[in-house]
This record gives sequence, C-alpha cells and structure tokens, in this order.
Amino acid sequence: LIYITRRFNFSASHRVYNPNLSDEENLKIYGKCSNPNGHGHNYIMDVTVAGEIDTETGFVMDLTELKDIVNKDIIYKVDHRNLNTDVDFMKGILASTENLAIKFWEQIENKVKTNKRRLHSIKIQETINNSVEYYGKSKQGK
Amino acid sequence: LIYITRRFNFSASHRVYNPNLSDEENLKIYGKCSNPNGHGHNYIMDVTVAGEIDTETGFVMDLTELKDIVNKDIIYKVDHRNLNTDVDFMKGILASTENLAIKFWEQIENKVKTNKRRLHSIKIQETINNSVEYYGKSKQGK
Amino acid sequence: LIYITRRFNFSASHRVYNPNLSDEENLKIYGKCSNPNGHGHNYIMDVTVAGEIDTETGFVMDLTELKDIVNKDIIYKVDHRNLNTDVDFMKGILASTENLAIKFWEQIENKVKTNKRRLHSIKIQETINNSVEYYGKSKQGK
Amino acid sequence: LIYITRRFNFSASHRVYNPNLSDEENLKIYGKCSNPNGHGHNYIMDVTVAGEIDTETGFVMDLTELKDIVNKDIIYKVDHRNLNTDVDFMKGILASTENLAIKFWEQIENKVKTNKRRLHSIKIQETINNSVEYYGKSKQGK
Amino acid sequence: LIYITRRFNFSASHRVYNPNLSDEENLKIYGKCSNPNGHGHNYIMDVTVAGEIDTETGFVMDLTELKDIVNKDIIYKVDHRNLNTDVDFMKGILASTENLAIKFWEQIENKVKTNKRRLHSIKIQETINNSVEYYGKSKQGK
Amino acid sequence: LIYITRRFNFSASHRVYNPNLSDEENLKIYGKCSNPNGHGHNYIMDVTVAGEIDTETGFVMDLTELKDIVNKDIIYKVDHRNLNTDVDFMKGILASTENLAIKFWEQIENKVKTNKRRLHSIKIQETINNSVEYYGKSKQGK
Repeated sequence: LIYITRRFNFSASHRVYNPNLSDEENLKIYGKCSNPNGHGHNYIMDVTVAGEIDTETGFVMDLTELKDIVNKDIIYKVDHRNLNTDVDFMKGILASTENLAIKFWEQIENKVKTNKRRLHSIKIQETINNSVEYYGKSKQGK
Repeated sequence: LIYITRRFNFSASHRVYNPNLSDEENLKIYGKCSNPNGHGHNYIMDVTVAGEIDTETGFVMDLTELKDIVNKDIIYKVDHRNLNTDVDFMKGILASTENLAIKFWEQIENKVKTNKRRLHSIKIQETINNSVEYYGKSKQGK
Repeated sequence: LIYITRRFNFSASHRVYNPNLSDEENLKIYGKCSNPNGHGHNYIMDVTVAGEIDTETGFVMDLTELKDIVNKDIIYKVDHRNLNTDVDFMKGILASTENLAIKFWEQIENKVKTNKRRLHSIKIQETINNSVEYYGKSKQGK
Repeated sequence: LIYITRRFNFSASHRVYNPNLSDEENLKIYGKCSNPNGHGHNYIMDVTVAGEIDTETGFVMDLTELKDIVNKDIIYKVDHRNLNTDVDFMKGILASTENLAIKFWEQIENKVKTNKRRLHSIKIQETINNSVEYYGKSKQGK
Repeated sequence: LIYITRRFNFSASHRVYNPNLSDEENLKIYGKCSNPNGHGHNYIMDVTVAGEIDTETGFVMDLTELKDIVNKDIIYKVDHRNLNTDVDFMKGILASTENLAIKFWEQIENKVKTNKRRLHSIKIQETINNSVEYYGKSKQGK
Repeated sequence: LIYITRRFNFSASHRVYNPNLSDEENLKIYGKCSNPNGHGHNYIMDVTVAGEIDTETGFVMDLTELKDIVNKDIIYKVDHRNLNTDVDFMKGILASTENLAIKFWEQIENKVKTNKRRLHSIKIQETINNSVEYYGKSKQGK
C-alpha cells in the first residue's frame, strides 16, 4: 500500500452556533465564532487515497481524476460560499470543522473506491493553528 | 532608519459587490466573490514601522505597544466579523482588500507616529495567492 | 473517532549535553548543540486529541479548554525559558526533543482524558528540518 | 516508541511517461507531465525513524548519522539530476513520486535498521499540492 | 498608489550553462546546476501591479484579467517545460533566474499598463532559499 | 539593476536586557524576553544584493560566493551560540533584532561590494510574527 495526498483550498464563511440555543448560550459555548453575522476562513483540505501502484501508469490514482471528483462534489459547493446556508449536504448540521470532515468524506468515499484503492483520510485546516482529521467509520485509530 | 514588522491574523467574512449594481452585474464584475451569502478568509496583515533605534531599549518601537494599538483599533473590530456589516470604519465602503488596507492605515497612522518613527506600510494577504500593500498618501512608490 | 489538532508555539533556549560526560565527549556526541552557553529555537508543537463528536456542540473538544490546559501546564513553563534550568518537569533530564515530547505528554495526558476523548499525539518541530512525534506508552505504532 | 523525522530537499527534472506507449498515448495519460523535454520540481522529503530513546544520548538516532545515510544513498544521486537518465536505482522505472518513494525506501531501509530502531516512513512532496507516503511492505496501513 | 500582488506557480527544468564554454568550465562556474541532463524547480512568481483604486470596483486591477495575461504569456509557455529548449522568448538566453525575471517582465509590461496602473515588480523564488526581484529598466532602486 | 536574495537560518539564544538597569526594570521594559536564563529562536535571515547582471554568467553574483561570505562572517559566529556572550561583534550591544541587523550589515557590506553590485538589505525574522529590515546608513527609505 502507498498513500497519495492532494491538497485543495476553499474560502468560505460560517457561523458556529446551535440554533436550539439562545445567542447568549451560543456566545458562552462558541465565543466569537458565534457572532451573528458570521466570519470566514481559507480552508486547506488534504485528501489522502491508499492503494496499490498501477504498474502501467506508476500511479495509485490519476490525480486529475481525484481532482475532478473532489472539485465537483465538494469544492464547487463550498468555495466562496456560506457553509450555513449555501451547501446542500450541510443543511441542518452544525458547521464545525469536525462535521465538515465527516460530510466531505460521505460525498466522495464511494467515488474514490475501486478494488485497488480507497479513501484513507480527509484533513482540514481551518486556520494555521486548528485542524481536524477523519479516517472514516471503519477505522478506529490512525 | 530601520524597519520593524509585526504580523497579525484575523478571520472575517465579506461579500465583494457594489450595492448600486444588480446581482447579475456584480456577478459579471466580481464572479464568485459576489455570491449573495458571502464567503470568508484568514487574512494575514503585516504592519511595518520605520524609525530610529532607541539607544536605551535597542528597539525602534516596543512591539507590545504596537500590538496593543493594532489589536484595539483594527483586530478587535474585524476578527470573526462580517466586513460588510460589522465594522464601523468600513460602513458604505466596498470590502476589497485594497480598501481594507487604506482604512486600516487611517485607523492607526497617528497612533504609531512620534518624532522618531512613523507607519511605513500595511500589507494584507487575503489568500496565499493574493495580497495588497499600502504605503500611505505621501509616498508614491515603494 | 475523529482527530483534532491545536498548534502551539514557544521560544526557548537549551544546551544538549550529558552532565556525566566531559565537554569534549559532549562535543563529539552532540556537536554544536553542546556549545557551553546554549542556543535556542522557535518550537512548534501540535497537540492532537482523538474522540467522538459531542452532538450538542459539534466538537470533539472545546479548543479553548485545550488551550487553557496546554498553556497552563506546558507553554507558560517553557516559553521564553531555558529548558535546562527553568522547567520543573525537565530537571535532571537531557533536553532533547524526544524527552520534551514525553514529558509534555505526561503533563497533560490525564487532564485531556474523559470517557469520550484522549490525548492522541504530541508532535514537536525543533527546526523546519527536525521533528519528533510521541503517541504515549500504550500505542506501539502510528 | 517515538518517531523522529528529518526533512531533506532536492531539485530534479523528470518526464513522466511510459516508453512502451506513443507520445500521443502518454499525453493522454500523463498530460503536460509527459512533455518530451521534461520539467522539474523542488522535492521535499521527510524521512521518519521509529525507535526507543537511547538513555545515554536522549536520542532515537543521531540525526547526523541519518543525514549522512540519506545524503550518500539518495540526495547525492538525485539532487540537480534528471530522474529518468541519471539515477542508477531508477533505471527502467517510471519516475512517478510513488515509485521514487519505494525506491528511496529500498536504498536506506537496512542502513537505518538496528535492534532499537527502524525506518518508519518516507514522505515526498512533489509540489505544494501533491505528496506520497510509503511505510514499507510489511505495514499495510498508517 | 496601492500595490496588488498575484502569486503564480510553475514547474520547469533547466540546465544553467554557457554554451560557449566547455563542460569543465561550466562545472567550475555553475557547479551541479550545469549537470548535462538538467534538473528542475517549482518556481513561485509574485507579480506586483501599482496603481490607483478604481472607485467603481474597489480594485487596482481585476485579478482575473491579470491572471489571464500572465497565464497566456508566461505560465502556459514555461509550466512543465524545459526552459532551455521549449520557451520561445528564452531562446539563446542563459536560463538563470535573473534572466527569467527580465524576460517575463518584457512579456507582460505593456499588457498590464494603462493610464491608471503599471507593472511594478516581478519576484521569482527558485527555491526556498534563492529568489530574484526585478523592477524594470526605469527604476534604479526598490 | 536586479535584486537577488539568499536565505540563511541560524538558531541562537539571547536575553534581551539592559545591564545598566535592575532585573525589575528590565522585566518592565522587555517582559519575558528579559528572563535571566535566556530563551532562543530559529532566526531566518534574507540577504539581498543589488547589481547588474554579468553577461557571461547570467548572474548578479555567484550565490556560492555570497554563501561563503555570510557563512564565514555571520552564520559561523552566531549559529548554535548565545548572542549575549559568544559573538565578538555583539559584545556590549543589546541583542535586539534591530541591533543584529545593523551589526550583520557591518560584517559583510564591504565584502559584497564591487563596482557592479552592493549589499541592498538584510531582513531578519525572529519569529513568524516579528521581523526587522535594514538598508544601510545611506538609504533613508525602502
């Protein structure tokens, strides 16, 4: 097995809050991240695929194919968008980086999978100091 | 003269559009940056002060003093905010990075200035690929 | 399980040497890192916590809580300090990055742990070229 | 177990193509990477060694020893070279980043290994957006 | 005046040598950069335009327009190419970073210029450690 | 004129304090930077030379020559050293980044200068957030 990673960038806005709570309660839990008119980030996402090397191409996966999948099913929907209001698969879901990673995984897991490769991880950096990694439901540890 | 630079970070949302134009016209000029519900960035700002070295301290300016000025008059107002709606000094002003740099300059120029030092430049990176630098009205070139 | 990471920075000085050996023997083993008056680094530390997402908050762990723990028990003690002489938990311990990672782990492991989350790894970059990762005693591999 | 990583840089040229195929077929599979006169990259390689801490030195491995091994057996052979024509261990092998990682592993695995430590991973970044990680034959997952 | 900068990336190969000299003389002057089969880099180029802000758009220059100019006249010609053999405007010119900067300037200076803005500088990073800046013929200093 | 820049790295310790003042007064002015046992940084220094291109080599200056000068007269003396006690040219001088830049300039200005080139600037980053630039005595502005 060998692991290939492609980095993607998107710029989005969000407000981190629980709509079942008051503004005061949200402020207590989420601090400035719950400011009513939102804020935003330049997100950096690393998508990693694990697989065997195709002996004809020398690649685990054609990165152009990976780019096309991720751009169509994730980046096009979130880049320069509001994560609370504009993204179909985030409707009704708290826009934390943790939830983004899980929902992104669901969008592309099956499209990446073949009998020779599988989606291994999605890592999202929200800022230079904060990031989240998700390895799917079946894998309990890194 | 010697130049000292302090870096600041803030995360904000904005929509780049001209309210005098229709959504269609805004889309034509600003593309995805004009999406109605906004998007956001992790902005990186470098504030540069030019001056003589204080022989007692060995510094051009105490960086703690510079941090206090910039945090109070800029960062506190824009970090985790919506640049279109939440910032007093951006009211009625198109939220381009160019305009941010000029308005930021106006907020702090006089507070930095003494007879031994002056604000030299404000550089703002909106993304890893885009940035703006402003040197004030009196200086025509870098 | 999902993994969240928060980055911390600290600037510290140290001398890498074994007090049981002569200066000449230390120089042979540690090279310039054993210079008698010490040197220093801007250390970058990534602290990763593994856990389940809290359905109410959307977070594995409130990053403010993690910051408070790490700042109080590690950063406050090592930042702008001499790692050989100023840090209680490094007394008598060779100030290699490996040992720092293990001792840092010991300071915070129990404070991070709940029935829904645990400390997963501590990664320390000493320079842009050198880093160390530690996953605790119970985990034998990444 | 603790993991230490040393970063190495090299600049090399290559053409990604399968000599058994025509230029047109190569163009279809590899795109601009198959341009006949080649192109190049600043590669960044992270070599990770897993092991126990030597109680006398406080190190998993003397990084100078690791540097000497990697420089002699890898960097000296690929830096400022053409990966298709100049590197003995890449002769007849498609110069993809995946294949580089595997062949680099083979060059140094036995030289790093002792009863207290082993080569854990080789990570190669070809560009800021593309990278590959290899963990050897015996390890099936990260 | 305000300055806007857009970053571009390209990967290219080159051999740095003077065809009027022998391989031995080239080796003496250029070292490993003159290896006969070439090597390569991930070049990073920052293009800076100086101008007044257009009051209608809030921009010095529409960055999409700048991208189109630079991509068509520079990036398309050099990315994934051999700088010695594949680039029309580098024919017969030693492929040093200094010469690249000057020739790139010549390709786009007139296309960027209007009565409200002008090309200010081209900065090219060949590696993380080496870079070149050019400000045109008319400007003698930064 | 064209500008070339070479980056250098060094790791050093220092204590920022004025020996004519008490520890309490130093603490008031310099904060944690005046801690008695010192701290340290990974300094990043960019040395820029301005000059004409040598038509035979295509270079403003052979970077190997620049490296040899800076390594011998600066890096060798400060890397893995204590800036307060170990560096001949810093004796009796407050170890602020401003003073480092000026003293570094003095070490190499004359060795870089020829009738075709001159030292243009020295930029030192003390941390990711703090940096200083010096352009020599004769130049009053950037």
